[in-house]
Amino acid sequence: MPDTISSIISPEGSLEILSQHEVARLHDTSKRGLHDLLRRCALAVLNCGSPTDDSVALMETYADFDIEVVPQDRGVRLKLTNAPAEAFVDGKMIRGIREHLSAVLRDIVYVYNEIQGHQRFDLSTAEGTTNAVFHILRKAGTLKPGRDPSLVVCWGGHSISREEYEYSKDVGYHLGLREMDICTGCGPGAMKGPMKGANVAHAKQRRREGRYLGVSEPGIIAAEAPNPIVNELVVMPDIEKRLEAFVRLGHGIIVFPGGVGTAEEILYLLGILLHPDNADMALPVIFSGPADSADYFQRIDEFLAYTLGEEVRRLYRIIIDDPTEVARTMRKGIDQVGDYRRARQDAFYYNWRLTIDRHFQETFEPTHEAMAGLALHRQQPVHELAANLRRAFSGIVAGNVKEQGIRAIKAHGPFRLSAEPELMRRLDELLDSFVAQGRMKLSGDYVPCYTLG
Amino acid sequence: MPDTISSIISPEGSLEILSQHEVARLHDTSKRGLHDLLRRCALAVLNCGSPTDDSVALMETYADFDIEVVPQDRGVRLKLTNAPAEAFVDGKMIRGIREHLSAVLRDIVYVYNEIQGHQRFDLSTAEGTTNAVFHILRKAGTLKPGRDPSLVVCWGGHSISREEYEYSKDVGYHLGLREMDICTGCGPGAMKGPMKGANVAHAKQRRREGRYLGVSEPGIIAAEAPNPIVNELVVMPDIEKRLEAFVRLGHGIIVFPGGVGTAEEILYLLGILLHPDNADMALPVIFSGPADSADYFQRIDEFLAYTLGEEVRRLYRIIIDDPTEVARTMRKGIDQVGDYRRARQDAFYYNWRLTIDRHFQETFEPTHEAMAGLALHRQQPVHELAANLRRAFSGIVAGNVKEQGIRAIKAHGPFRLSAEPELMRRLDELLDSFVAQGRMKLSGDYVPCYTLG
Amino acid sequence: MPDTISSIISPEGSLEILSQHEVARLHDTSKRGLHDLLRRCALAVLNCGSPTDDSVALMETYADFDIEVVPQDRGVRLKLTNAPAEAFVDGKMIRGIREHLSAVLRDIVYVYNEIQGHQRFDLSTAEGTTNAVFHILRKAGTLKPGRDPSLVVCWGGHSISREEYEYSKDVGYHLGLREMDICTGCGPGAMKGPMKGANVAHAKQRRREGRYLGVSEPGIIAAEAPNPIVNELVVMPDIEKRLEAFVRLGHGIIVFPGGVGTAEEILYLLGILLHPDNADMALPVIFSGPADSADYFQRIDEFLAYTLGEEVRRLYRIIIDDPTEVARTMRKGIDQVGDYRRARQDAFYYNWRLTIDRHFQETFEPTHEAMAGLALHRQQPVHELAANLRRAFSGIVAGNVKEQGIRAIKAHGPFRLSAEPELMRRLDELLDSFVAQGRMKLSGDYVPCYTLG
Amino acid sequence: MPDTISSIISPEGSLEILSQHEVARLHDTSKRGLHDLLRRCALAVLNCGSPTDDSVALMETYADFDIEVVPQDRGVRLKLTNAPAEAFVDGKMIRGIREHLSAVLRDIVYVYNEIQGHQRFDLSTAEGTTNAVFHILRKAGTLKPGRDPSLVVCWGGHSISREEYEYSKDVGYHLGLREMDICTGCGPGAMKGPMKGANVAHAKQRRREGRYLGVSEPGIIAAEAPNPIVNELVVMPDIEKRLEAFVRLGHGIIVFPGGVGTAEEILYLLGILLHPDNADMALPVIFSGPADSADYFQRIDEFLAYTLGEEVRRLYRIIIDDPTEVARTMRKGIDQVGDYRRARQDAFYYNWRLTIDRHFQETFEPTHEAMAGLALHRQQPVHELAANLRRAFSGIVAGNVKEQGIRAIKAHGPFRLSAEPELMRRLDELLDSFVAQGRMKLSGDYVPCYTLG
Repeated sequence: MPDTISSIISPEGSLEILSQHEVARLHDTSKRGLHDLLRRCALAVLNCGSPTDDSVALMETYADFDIEVVPQDRGVRLKLTNAPAEAFVDGKMIRGIREHLSAVLRDIVYVYNEIQGHQRFDLSTAEGTTNAVFHILRKAGTLKPGRDPSLVVCWGGHSISREEYEYSKDVGYHLGLREMDICTGCGPGAMKGPMKGANVAHAKQRRREGRYLGVSEPGIIAAEAPNPIVNELVVMPDIEKRLEAFVRLGHGIIVFPGGVGTAEEILYLLGILLHPDNADMALPVIFSGPADSADYFQRIDEFLAYTLGEEVRRLYRIIIDDPTEVARTMRKGIDQVGDYRRARQDAFYYNWRLTIDRHFQETFEPTHEAMAGLALHRQQPVHELAANLRRAFSGIVAGNVKEQGIRAIKAHGPFRLSAEPELMRRLDELLDSFVAQGRMKLSGDYVPCYTLG
Repeated sequence: MPDTISSIISPEGSLEILSQHEVARLHDTSKRGLHDLLRRCALAVLNCGSPTDDSVALMETYADFDIEVVPQDRGVRLKLTNAPAEAFVDGKMIRGIREHLSAVLRDIVYVYNEIQGHQRFDLSTAEGTTNAVFHILRKAGTLKPGRDPSLVVCWGGHSISREEYEYSKDVGYHLGLREMDICTGCGPGAMKGPMKGANVAHAKQRRREGRYLGVSEPGIIAAEAPNPIVNELVVMPDIEKRLEAFVRLGHGIIVFPGGVGTAEEILYLLGILLHPDNADMALPVIFSGPADSADYFQRIDEFLAYTLGEEVRRLYRIIIDDPTEVARTMRKGIDQVGDYRRARQDAFYYNWRLTIDRHFQETFEPTHEAMAGLALHRQQPVHELAANLRRAFSGIVAGNVKEQGIRAIKAHGPFRLSAEPELMRRLDELLDSFVAQGRMKLSGDYVPCYTLG
Repeated sequence: MPDTISSIISPEGSLEILSQHEVARLHDTSKRGLHDLLRRCALAVLNCGSPTDDSVALMETYADFDIEVVPQDRGVRLKLTNAPAEAFVDGKMIRGIREHLSAVLRDIVYVYNEIQGHQRFDLSTAEGTTNAVFHILRKAGTLKPGRDPSLVVCWGGHSISREEYEYSKDVGYHLGLREMDICTGCGPGAMKGPMKGANVAHAKQRRREGRYLGVSEPGIIAAEAPNPIVNELVVMPDIEKRLEAFVRLGHGIIVFPGGVGTAEEILYLLGILLHPDNADMALPVIFSGPADSADYFQRIDEFLAYTLGEEVRRLYRIIIDDPTEVARTMRKGIDQVGDYRRARQDAFYYNWRLTIDRHFQETFEPTHEAMAGLALHRQQPVHELAANLRRAFSGIVAGNVKEQGIRAIKAHGPFRLSAEPELMRRLDELLDSFVAQGRMKLSGDYVPCYTLG
Repeated sequence: MPDTISSIISPEGSLEILSQHEVARLHDTSKRGLHDLLRRCALAVLNCGSPTDDSVALMETYADFDIEVVPQDRGVRLKLTNAPAEAFVDGKMIRGIREHLSAVLRDIVYVYNEIQGHQRFDLSTAEGTTNAVFHILRKAGTLKPGRDPSLVVCWGGHSISREEYEYSKDVGYHLGLREMDICTGCGPGAMKGPMKGANVAHAKQRRREGRYLGVSEPGIIAAEAPNPIVNELVVMPDIEKRLEAFVRLGHGIIVFPGGVGTAEEILYLLGILLHPDNADMALPVIFSGPADSADYFQRIDEFLAYTLGEEVRRLYRIIIDDPTEVARTMRKGIDQVGDYRRARQDAFYYNWRLTIDRHFQETFEPTHEAMAGLALHRQQPVHELAANLRRAFSGIVAGNVKEQGIRAIKAHGPFRLSAEPELMRRLDELLDSFVAQGRMKLSGDYVPCYTLG
């Protein structure tokens, strides 16, 4: 039995001043439909002392844990029952964890009331969705008008090698020395390394206002709990809004090595940047890793050039084994983002100008039918092919590791993809290389979850 | 021709981060229905250098003045044409005036979109109205969670004698020495004196975070422009919401001498405090003036005791010619408010617990019919009699000085009030004493605008 | 009998962390030689609520007042006996007054120990004296490295007309609107007006870090107590070091109308600026007053041009009845001071580069012999003639109003000045014009205290 | 050849406002006598990126490195030639390193001028020395009047096992969670671990004003360069003043495992606390290490109890393998320090009340003669025996590892100690246990450098 503590705490920040009506609604919503979601996410945050990426195990360990919103005239309190003891010091919750917990409450319950439960946002349109993303981020205090561009989004695998982790830390260190901030998806690996490195560098540079922004999502927060360096946390309602938050908040993006999921993110990003409306958009993108990881990016680079054309290469730069060069290049790129936005009187805190196609906002449900229907050929605009490839990767991730996907494969056999033969061959090769590099979480031998239909 | 300047400026504070949707709505609303209101209020604020209480004259002097909301990707700008030159220094708008202007825009246009144009607030109920008041004040940044109770609301006439003005300044000085803040209705006289006094005292006490909160209303802001000391400005949508803002924000209330309007405010306040639900409410109320003004409060006191019963006297204290004693008593009273709210875990920044009857939130339209129908007798609960007396005063103010009221009296003769004879006699006496004290703005001899029906 | 309070208080700021040795020395010095001086200055500061310029009367009113430095392990406390009650609110000293009192203790006792009692500073040399002035100001926290040039020294009479006072306030207001700070000699008149005006302007511009620096001297602090706006106070050891502090701290100087004393200050300033070493020094000087005071500066201007040559006029500008123009000219001048010092890598906070001749640091003792020996002719370098004229004015001030001077005149007859006849005639005329303008504090008819020897 | 950079930088903080005289003196002193010392210490600080504890190697690697104080009207600049490139980012020195470099300049050159070069401090007396220590710390800004007691001094070895290092980090973490700050001697091992742990905890607790105070000394700064977490650095003139700084600044002391040097520090501390004048002094002392290090403290504890009496045990607590308990105990102890000082009106920032015997301020020169003369028996007051034992340990450290000591032993044979036989036996045993635990830096077999005389 783990040590637990029961306690009543006050939330922080934007939940401090609530109307009685808001208090009542918060109380209601948290008791009913969203209670289980709130409970799961809260536990993830409270458990950050001893991270585990197995959320099922976590829920079992703390089966008695509960959270309740207690309405009061003055605002709300949070009543925690049997919470992990490490979140407390001598009976008082650690302040950073209290902030994360307040962020979870704000984003799960409050945002639900304001965004999803309302007619104000038409989430079936690109514009309405972008607007909703803006409101969630503004509510979270993430949009800061006074600051120059400095936010580097870091993507990459959460279970990478020690060497790759140290490399991501080193890159973060050199970013931090140059007064840049870090935004990642929370969790370990390439999400934690850059923050840790930047934190040391900010201390050396006496930069007290460094930002370590974690953008999470209810489905993954338990597996990828915010590390303690995260000093701003936002929980977006779903994967697609989370991705949109990254690309609208970030002033530059670095991709570290990962697996299929990382490849999917790369296709998401390039799919957007290839949209004709974004032709002149300033957004520096760097793929980087240590010397031993060079192969990962080389394979991806070849695949991208073949499928999306040589032209795609002007959208990113690959820098291997040189953290200083990564940081310098990013600094220069971000300074250009500043110039670009100033010239157009755009905000620094939210990239309104970026066009994101409706496809990229919609969830892709990887059924056998949907997978079979994907148009995987080069007789279409490149940004549409990028969107379809992203969906294919998404389905493969599901077929390999997600419960539902695995079950579907078991029941109906592998997905049947219908693609140009050469494109298919190259996709095969790419995925084989990931397996060879140990970048697929697999039990037993790798049996592809798809065939050429 | 006055000196004018045309310029484009950026708003401050809460209008800094807007969604594109909000920008568009702000632009639309400001161009259409609300444009004239916005223009009038903006001009009042810009003109604060040379105050006049004649808003018609002001509009004529600056007939060419215009204001336009210019949408931009990054937010909004305000385009001013032919604005009073005193609002600028070497072509740059004085920062405090820019803040007031932003507050006007926020409260006129933005709040209109969010409050009045929406189904979110049911303004036909007490609860919905209180909630709307809360939202307007929160949006304005007026609700500050971290501060101990310190806000003293000061009421009284805006055209008082020099001696009374100096007295109000002296009271403000002694409040400021004791770390209290001032909230008034903006404008001159008893609205300005306490702020000026407190400002000097705060400088002496090196209190940098002193608050000088002005709560105005579109109908009066032109006549009572915020003085330059005001460092927070809120424009409430109407007189009743403004009064509600005062009593829910203030931790104590001081009434200085005034005229019938001040008597009306006193009845508003006592009518609320006499409500049985507010029986144990902690809210210190002091009536105060210099020695020569003692008569004003004595008359009111007698009238209140007769109409509402001796009991009403426990709700206020009259202190004549002793600013130090006023400040000490208020300090003690406000400390008790702190204890009271702490004991009930109430917020310090908004008095949710105070019950305000629906009558006090509704506008009273002083037609002959409505005046004739007022129940002015003592066979009813005191808080209802207070509400009716307040309406009677409101009608008399209108009949004496407001354009519409004067016209109605001309057309239909004096209002016919139906009251208990003794109560009527005392009302007559009270109003006569105001005339004798020169507290009625009259041209020619005083002819009462009412008779006993 | 005035209201008094006895209390023990803690000093502020630089006296917070003292060594036991320093505590002991402070205690000793304050008990012995300097006790009376400390007592007089402390009383002046404590009495600032009700200013009087009669220090003798003040000492008599509070004959029982005493101050004692109480040593403690942790630092010092100040024990006050029978102090003026207005310095306290409900038994607690007003914070601003506590700061002034701490400044007095620091500058009287502490600085005495460090500067005068030590061999570290050779006060018989120009360099040693300048160094001592620097140390006193640094100790007082007056030298602030992070700020751009903004400090305007304002000189002028302390008993000027209401119109001149209002004018000085208006100039201060326009300086404040342009982000300039004020330094004066403390006290009323032209020393208070500019601070008051700037304070209002800083509030309007939301400039929270505005400086209102008072530079006083033990002999005058009682007559010219720091007004409550002063938020930094330094008490220099004597008149000459006070003048040196003004010209080394200030980034520009405005002279308002005054009497002979003001003329003496003008000669001090021009005498320094005329020194060949200061030929290219950037230091804007403006003489300004309302329309009715134009004559004062015209007379001075003519006298200066005659005695020191037309060339002297390039060192100052006379601006009559135009506060906005004064402020704009000063702003431009101070911006040039910034450029000048940046180009030479000079500090902004202390004008090391300014050469101040040893004469200007030495006290002039106006005996009959010394006055008779003054070389008042134009066959000498202009800066030396300026120095001699300054001494002559200094003697005339003494002969007119200072106790010692009056006694000397009574005993030995008028001072005999030996001057060029034309120069003497012009001096006569100038002083006559001061009398005509009512700028001499005289009882009875004006009888000149000097004759041509 | 290492990468180097030549650059001119401005110092930070207390060296910003200097008089011309001070600038000249700084320039002179830094060129002459102190130049080599300054150069060595500066190099240590600049090299902090890649720590080495071999200062000779460091000086050889950067043989071309030089530092020069460049006087300017505005202050000083530091001219660096061939400085380690890691101290810079894109040509600009890392801010934290610039602060450390300024601290070195301040403490080496400036303090030399003020303290050692002056008659102000009589360094031959206890009082004068304590006063000098106070002045150095005040000049460094180390004495902060506004803070509650929170400073934990951590001692222990700089080359400890990985396990002991991790343990010290864990203790620091739990101290940090309870809002305590860390002061160590700079350098690696037990000097770095607690800071690193506290830094993580402060981030979690959002404690932005955490202090990581390094107190160094010219002789060791090269070997124990300040780690980058150190955000305040003081370089005391010698070992004894450094020890005095520790005990007067710290509100509690934790000793981690170390070697003979750590034992010497323990005897220094207990020798002071055993002084009759300090009988009731509140100063919590804890010895702590992981389970495997229990033996180290057990041996020391037994030795202390035998030599200084059972009574000595009430002065410290031994807590093994329980970081939480260490932190809780220290928190409680420090709260008592607060109460103790408040009750006596003592300062929190400097422990004036602690009596430090003159012996403990004097350097012990371990010649053969001095060692032979030490009174090592129990027929003397315990605090004197403690002082003598400390000297004996000091000599043994020198004989084992310091160049001079080793040379002396080679020339004259082992030190001859004259001690009570039982005491000698126990001393032997204790030192043998250190050897057995690998706590002696030895080359070859251990041959004791002393015999019983």
